[in-house]
Amino acid sequence: MNEVLPSNIDLDPLFNPKRVAVLGASENTNKIGYLQLKALLDAGFEGAIYPIHPTANEIGELPCYASVGDTPEPVDLAILCVGIHQVEKCLIDCGESGVKAAIVFASGYSEIGEEGMIAQNRLKEIAEQYDIRLIGPNCVGLLNTTNGLMGTFSPGLTNVPLGKKREVGFVTQSGAFGVLTYIAAAQHGLTFNYFVSVGNEVDVSFSDVIEYMLHDPKTKVASGYLEGEKNAAKLRKLAKFALQINKPIVIMKSGRSSAGSRAAASHTGSLAGADQVYDGFFKQAGIVRADDYDDILSFSKLFLANKLPTGKNTVIVTSSGGRGINEADRCESYGLNIHALSDKVRKEIEKNIPGFASASNPVDLTAAASITNPELYLAPLKVLVKDPDTDIILFPEFPIHWDENTPLLQEFVNICKNSDKFVMISNFPLKGMSIPKGVQYLEHNGIPFILGDMNPIRSLAKLVDYAEAYRKAHKISDEPTKTELDVSNIQHLLPANQTLSESQSSEILSAYGIRTAKRITAKTEDAAVQAANNMGYPVVMKIDSPDIPHKTEVNGIRLNVQNGQEVRQAFREIYSSAKEHCPTADLHGISVQEMLPEGVEVIVGVTSDPTFGPVIMFGLGGVFVEVFKDVSFRVAPITRQDAIDMMESLKGYQILQGVRNKKPVDQEAIIDVLLKVSRLIEDYSDIIQEIDINPLIVYEDGIVAADALIITK
Amino acid sequence: MNEVLPSNIDLDPLFNPKRVAVLGASENTNKIGYLQLKALLDAGFEGAIYPIHPTANEIGELPCYASVGDTPEPVDLAILCVGIHQVEKCLIDCGESGVKAAIVFASGYSEIGEEGMIAQNRLKEIAEQYDIRLIGPNCVGLLNTTNGLMGTFSPGLTNVPLGKKREVGFVTQSGAFGVLTYIAAAQHGLTFNYFVSVGNEVDVSFSDVIEYMLHDPKTKVASGYLEGEKNAAKLRKLAKFALQINKPIVIMKSGRSSAGSRAAASHTGSLAGADQVYDGFFKQAGIVRADDYDDILSFSKLFLANKLPTGKNTVIVTSSGGRGINEADRCESYGLNIHALSDKVRKEIEKNIPGFASASNPVDLTAAASITNPELYLAPLKVLVKDPDTDIILFPEFPIHWDENTPLLQEFVNICKNSDKFVMISNFPLKGMSIPKGVQYLEHNGIPFILGDMNPIRSLAKLVDYAEAYRKAHKISDEPTKTELDVSNIQHLLPANQTLSESQSSEILSAYGIRTAKRITAKTEDAAVQAANNMGYPVVMKIDSPDIPHKTEVNGIRLNVQNGQEVRQAFREIYSSAKEHCPTADLHGISVQEMLPEGVEVIVGVTSDPTFGPVIMFGLGGVFVEVFKDVSFRVAPITRQDAIDMMESLKGYQILQGVRNKKPVDQEAIIDVLLKVSRLIEDYSDIIQEIDINPLIVYEDGIVAADALIITK
Repeated sequence: MNEVLPSNIDLDPLFNPKRVAVLGASENTNKIGYLQLKALLDAGFEGAIYPIHPTANEIGELPCYASVGDTPEPVDLAILCVGIHQVEKCLIDCGESGVKAAIVFASGYSEIGEEGMIAQNRLKEIAEQYDIRLIGPNCVGLLNTTNGLMGTFSPGLTNVPLGKKREVGFVTQSGAFGVLTYIAAAQHGLTFNYFVSVGNEVDVSFSDVIEYMLHDPKTKVASGYLEGEKNAAKLRKLAKFALQINKPIVIMKSGRSSAGSRAAASHTGSLAGADQVYDGFFKQAGIVRADDYDDILSFSKLFLANKLPTGKNTVIVTSSGGRGINEADRCESYGLNIHALSDKVRKEIEKNIPGFASASNPVDLTAAASITNPELYLAPLKVLVKDPDTDIILFPEFPIHWDENTPLLQEFVNICKNSDKFVMISNFPLKGMSIPKGVQYLEHNGIPFILGDMNPIRSLAKLVDYAEAYRKAHKISDEPTKTELDVSNIQHLLPANQTLSESQSSEILSAYGIRTAKRITAKTEDAAVQAANNMGYPVVMKIDSPDIPHKTEVNGIRLNVQNGQEVRQAFREIYSSAKEHCPTADLHGISVQEMLPEGVEVIVGVTSDPTFGPVIMFGLGGVFVEVFKDVSFRVAPITRQDAIDMMESLKGYQILQGVRNKKPVDQEAIIDVLLKVSRLIEDYSDIIQEIDINPLIVYEDGIVAADALIITK
Repeated sequence: MNEVLPSNIDLDPLFNPKRVAVLGASENTNKIGYLQLKALLDAGFEGAIYPIHPTANEIGELPCYASVGDTPEPVDLAILCVGIHQVEKCLIDCGESGVKAAIVFASGYSEIGEEGMIAQNRLKEIAEQYDIRLIGPNCVGLLNTTNGLMGTFSPGLTNVPLGKKREVGFVTQSGAFGVLTYIAAAQHGLTFNYFVSVGNEVDVSFSDVIEYMLHDPKTKVASGYLEGEKNAAKLRKLAKFALQINKPIVIMKSGRSSAGSRAAASHTGSLAGADQVYDGFFKQAGIVRADDYDDILSFSKLFLANKLPTGKNTVIVTSSGGRGINEADRCESYGLNIHALSDKVRKEIEKNIPGFASASNPVDLTAAASITNPELYLAPLKVLVKDPDTDIILFPEFPIHWDENTPLLQEFVNICKNSDKFVMISNFPLKGMSIPKGVQYLEHNGIPFILGDMNPIRSLAKLVDYAEAYRKAHKISDEPTKTELDVSNIQHLLPANQTLSESQSSEILSAYGIRTAKRITAKTEDAAVQAANNMGYPVVMKIDSPDIPHKTEVNGIRLNVQNGQEVRQAFREIYSSAKEHCPTADLHGISVQEMLPEGVEVIVGVTSDPTFGPVIMFGLGGVFVEVFKDVSFRVAPITRQDAIDMMESLKGYQILQGVRNKKPVDQEAIIDVLLKVSRLIEDYSDIIQEIDINPLIVYEDGIVAADALIITK
């Protein structure tokens, strides 16, 4: 545990430069070179600032230099406030004079198409040649609010007053949305310590910044806005490290709807919309997925309370019955549990609240608490902090006039501090009437306050999930389980760029220890009859051809074939139907297979995701996968815990546990297949493109693949 | 169409009294009698105000009267600011002196239990005896902001500045939550014309107030916060009327989570959680269900634009790619459609935007629009207003410095006004940086502006649904379809308070023209064999007993019985198993039934809801109902359109349309059964408690009930 992930990239010159040069510095207030210089000066940047200008002697009362090579001391960070046509030359100047890092604002690169891409590649080459860490191009810049490094021209960022506590970092792939989030966060009392707009990511990427924040001791939450990750493997490693050190990664990933459907031969491929795969990856990696910008703020505030909820059992304490019901609705809709209080707890609460109040959950103190008897807020708290069934205590309204000198608030804080319960306050959002005077005192003592319009309950549910992922990561070894498999080399079974027949595919699964239906491919009627006789009736017969992946469509399957005569008839029918539908198909023969007894049909598949590489899918088969799309994804390789999570996350999981008087199926057998498939794709990810095992039939005891399809690259 | 629903209750003395008496008026600033009087005076109530006090000559510079009978002119509305012990006497005084309406604030009634209930019933009797329209007790009061009638003591209400436009009424079953909603609405620019806290509803109920608002020409939206409706039939009638006159009813119904599960013998009963039934009812009635208070505000603002969206095809026009993607995600998650623009439309847009901008949906004008070239906002608009595929045009950010004198805004408004497209603006929520200067000009011209933190997209989707319900109501006759059924009186088949056997239940369904499986109840083995021989093999055999509603649990069903010998064996086994499990059960015999061919299993049921009376359920059968709970509810009687909606609202609807090479099933046959069941329960709602037809097997052509269960009251 707690292995230290080595940082492969040194971003310190970007975040903590001693000397900054502003290339294109200007006194023209319309120019970004003016705005950038002003931003650094106004923010009181701690290091040296060198304006660079070909002719000026002084800009902004600072001595000016003609070139970045002329400065009295070597420059760490160069901020290029120049137009696109000067960028290359300036960057080469920087390289020649030993500048370690640069920010390029200019746009007109890959975002405008091919021509821009060529220019961008030249920037990339220059940065590589001189080993410059480069942010941008086409970005809004980089801020370190702890040392005054306002590496930006955007008034949206520079005009925002800074809050005291700065422990959350933020990296964004959208400049405009990032600026809005930065401002919104500050307006809600959360100033990011770092803000990085990565732009076109020619050098420093989204995950590079996440990596920096994970290693930075001053950052407690690493957050970001993501449109598409370019190095998923790195993000996965970072996520594992983040869980180890209890520093959550919170990402708002957009593009849920634009996933669209992909053209794919396998079922798995067609179901693997980009967003579904991201969702599976985030769950697997323990990355908190923010649904919107407010989750970034609210989750961070909750996490900064320095206390993880011990579970999801939530008690609501309110002075309004209506508010209580509404918050209960909200909690349950996000998966928190409004549990029934035990008789003992209820009776203890009742001792100290009026008779007309209610000690059930939600605990309703009535308007008395908000008007005449605020001490009532403490009565249930004193009991609940000792209740082993309670994890979270939620106050959906709280006296706003209490401040740090109010004895009742002091008592409230002391009770909370000495308890492992997660206590949270969330008033109804009204301008000027909602934020408690004692808010900073509360937050300082680990009691978060979040306004009701910032989705506090949704974020609280995400914190509960994060806490669970954190506990799992520290309980179970999450090393990918290397199944002890004596696998022979099967490379010869995997010709390139082919759709394998069911028989070929099944052979590969068998080699990895996955039981498949017994089958013999017969080339003649006689051979088919003999095969069936040997196997025992009834049998299943299927066309065996790599060119016919969807056998039903050519009427190429016969179930429940009862005797030799039926075998002959089926043979002829299947053969001629296949010939008719696919005259050019390479027919290996007719596969005669054992007829498997009824069981629960599931599907296991693999698809190659452009972002994540091989991705494993599990779902219920038949109409469940076709109509309800009840499937889950995880990025390969998967762990045993991932396999369990994949099963349990299905809406129809109950079917595996046994419904309608049926016994539970063999879930261990499912886990085993998932891990073997994971091993298979790990071993041959360079060759295998897609796998469908559909249906995979699972029984009370055991599991058999009834059909399989493998497509190679 | 547009039949006028007669108003059965005259609430005018409550909303528009000419003379108001304040009983318990006081000069003690701590008393509600002081606060109430001050509220009326401060608001400049248009009518006469008479303070009532046993001894004072003058209160608040108004002459005071000892009793409500002593006033110079008769009182319309009495506001009782007295303690619970004086309420009865005061109310009788009111009655004796001809007061027409009263508001009672005092609490201590039904909400505190039995004793309070007795006192409350006395109030009810007094109100009835003197024909007084009474609001309360245990309420916050009644406001008419259009005439200064501040019938409340709550500073939360009286201190709120009033906005100009007041066309939305609001009625609440929670005083505290109502006050918060009132304030929040006003802070977001929406002042309710009426605010009514109905308290314990001893006389005037939630739906009475809705009724008043529907009849009131000054009200354009009737909204409310509901915990439980006491007169669902009335609300249903009102909802129908509301759709006719295009005045939406918008209700936030809480208690989604507290539905819990009910103990019920039928499947239908156990699935009919209160919230599921409410949801079905709201959809059926065309009532807009607000998910939270913000939906009430945002929906109202959208509706007040006076333009209903023609569909759900939405184009986003933005200056930030990130914002565009996020809003697209949001739109699609709420069911709006971000459609692909036609080549023609795209090319026309491209003519007037820069090359680096994108004319796809979301249309991305890039930062140029927000910084240097605001005229770009108009370019796509001019094209889109003429695009027949587009219903809605959404601007997720918009220049905030444009005011009504800005030519570009004037042009923008003119283009929108001359179009049937629904145009909406919704900026990112930042304090002081989000509300356009021209907001009133925009709203005045039918272009709603809603801040991003008020869930504008969710509300927009609700407006699209409302528009659809409105169009349906005006297109199709929604009279309950009286199926032309020649039904004989079946009352003799319905003994009271019984669980009927499958045979008995099936007989009733048959009498209503629903085809059931052929069946003969055999009392002996010989009779069973003869029945099976006559019917033809294979057959199904089931225990036939009213005391065994769940036959599987006693192992009381045999499928696929092939011959006489198997019939005998099955007969013995079923009989002895039933005897063993239920020794005291009344066994009518063994039912021998035709074995129905495979089809799609569905379930139709009826349960008696405490709020809505008979409620009809439809769902897919088997595991779909058990595990996925994929069912829909509508309140009986249902229309043909309701039946269609019930089918189409299933997640698994595709299964009825045919999947996996199967042909669609006979949806007309399903509609027919639903309407016949609706007729059955309409005819015998006083006797029938619950119905389960499960499974009901539907084929490409035709439908048969394979099992049935009826429970009587």
